[in-house]
Amino acid sequence: MAMKSMSDLKSDYNNINLGHGSGGVMTRELLDNIIFKAFSNTFLDKKHDGAIISTQGAMAISTDSFVVSPIFFKGGDIGQLAVHGTVNDVAMCGAIPEYLSLSFIVEEGMDMKDFIKIVKSIKEAADKSDVKIITGDTKVVERGKGDKIFINTTGFGRVHPNANISADLIRNGDKIIVSGPIAQHGMAIMSQREGLEFESNIESDSTNLNFLVESMLDEFGKDIRLLRDPTRGGMASVLCEIADDMKLGIRLREGDLPMNKQVAAACEMLGLDPLFVASEGIFLAFVHPDSADDILHLMSNHEKGGGAAIIGEVESSHPGRVVMESRIGGKRMVTPLLGEQLPRIC
Amino acid sequence: MAMKSMSDLKSDYNNINLGHGSGGVMTRELLDNIIFKAFSNTFLDKKHDGAIISTQGAMAISTDSFVVSPIFFKGGDIGQLAVHGTVNDVAMCGAIPEYLSLSFIVEEGMDMKDFIKIVKSIKEAADKSDVKIITGDTKVVERGKGDKIFINTTGFGRVHPNANISADLIRNGDKIIVSGPIAQHGMAIMSQREGLEFESNIESDSTNLNFLVESMLDEFGKDIRLLRDPTRGGMASVLCEIADDMKLGIRLREGDLPMNKQVAAACEMLGLDPLFVASEGIFLAFVHPDSADDILHLMSNHEKGGGAAIIGEVESSHPGRVVMESRIGGKRMVTPLLGEQLPRIC
Repeated sequence: MAMKSMSDLKSDYNNINLGHGSGGVMTRELLDNIIFKAFSNTFLDKKHDGAIISTQGAMAISTDSFVVSPIFFKGGDIGQLAVHGTVNDVAMCGAIPEYLSLSFIVEEGMDMKDFIKIVKSIKEAADKSDVKIITGDTKVVERGKGDKIFINTTGFGRVHPNANISADLIRNGDKIIVSGPIAQHGMAIMSQREGLEFESNIESDSTNLNFLVESMLDEFGKDIRLLRDPTRGGMASVLCEIADDMKLGIRLREGDLPMNKQVAAACEMLGLDPLFVASEGIFLAFVHPDSADDILHLMSNHEKGGGAAIIGEVESSHPGRVVMESRIGGKRMVTPLLGEQLPRIC
Repeated sequence: MAMKSMSDLKSDYNNINLGHGSGGVMTRELLDNIIFKAFSNTFLDKKHDGAIISTQGAMAISTDSFVVSPIFFKGGDIGQLAVHGTVNDVAMCGAIPEYLSLSFIVEEGMDMKDFIKIVKSIKEAADKSDVKIITGDTKVVERGKGDKIFINTTGFGRVHPNANISADLIRNGDKIIVSGPIAQHGMAIMSQREGLEFESNIESDSTNLNFLVESMLDEFGKDIRLLRDPTRGGMASVLCEIADDMKLGIRLREGDLPMNKQVAAACEMLGLDPLFVASEGIFLAFVHPDSADDILHLMSNHEKGGGAAIIGEVESSHPGRVVMESRIGGKRMVTPLLGEQLPRIC
């Protein structure tokens, strides 16, 4: 179904109610009038309990539930985030995302217009990412037992033939590239969160990274050792986890970390370390040092990697630890996020 | 990891708190001490954002979110239900379930002992169903924004080589078999639900149906046209949906419907039509009439199909409609569930 007919999505109800999760007539109406219409494809049109796909060889699978609050924010909403997040996790496995499952947990009383808006946003993000929604589920919980809407997506895609992604393959001297400015998504959410609202035009960076990853694998294949997106817990938590897993050290240079000025200012204002703040539209690549500049060049010329930079390298000294050189030449140990900076960022 | 060491699962915390969903140190502790320990396998041990599996040919995929309340009930809990539900949906596609993703949305404050109990129950159900948990996610929402725990599972498995399951293949004269007594799960939940508690020993029938389905496909392959489990909305909703999709009629015989006496009595007491009440451990099979008796024989001799019965057939008269012959010879039209009988049955 073409996107232009997305305006046809409508319901006889102004709000989601418990009957929409009953498995009976109301569930069927919601499916027929909204879900099946929006996502229509040969898999979903069978209306079975599941979908059947053709596969061949290695497939990557990744799942995430999205509980972000607010559900609409600058630069995105929970719907596109649920597509991008899982598309990107599949891409981080060195795979080409092809299919998504889609499961809603809706709170009774949710505005039907908001629900439809989110469905459209999912459809648009899925089309842009070139993935199909092939199976799904809708549950409704009583008022006060959920929070508007939670979305689970599980993604599948075939592993790129050139990919050989594994933390085990990281070596002393490998370079670390980040694909763009950090901490954007988290600061967009925080700037809109109840009680924290402050003047800001910071937009979430939520986007699909699969095509950029695919080009990198096409050209540089096995020189790409590991891909990881610094979402919850931010760069610091992800890098500490990797250092710990591979028993090697990581050195970062603060001055090389790309960051939007507004984001830096907002972090300072709220007293937040940007290394702990979630991103949704960037990733870290650990790469062979000989190819690092060429990979950076490719990334910088791609629309999703415009702000890419080499930010550090892997070292055999200080195994398991992440060290950052500050702008003025000092060093500090980077630790992972301990508690919870701000919940429900994704 | 052997089941005996499941007693090792423990946490430094008495309750789940927001930090467990932060992506930082507390998330990692929960994963390392409980999740990775419980489900340890070569896929999960990589601790990547996703898992990579080997595939070949047609694979079935099915997803479901589970929001059942209460989370512990007679005969089961939300954990094993989340495994059985998705295992069965994959089986209903004519496939052999092999892998599950597992995603939690936990409410802040959930008792850690209950969380661990559910993790153990998931592990036990997955082992019994012969499926592996290969990737997952854990989110935590603030107190009052969820309800203890919601679980999403997405299942994958290769389509059985003999399977050719499709509503399009149903023909006039096909027989309809149900694998066991109806309405068991729904009545178990209702009998325990706040405000509805009544004396009853009714247990949920939640179980894995994959091995029974596999034996049926091994022996009768293409004579099995459609498989469907009557969960939400019950038998009536599922049969009406099938009749509507295939533009054929369905005739049921009330006297042939297997039902436990206690369940029948409880339905009568609450004024509920058992045809609308959810099951979790039975399924409907539409089969070629020539093989119906042999298929019934196989099912009856299987531990998961002991109560199987032929309950009706497909007719070319009254297309799109389901008619039931009552015990005393009358006829009534069976309609799908309109509103919501009782929410959060699964």
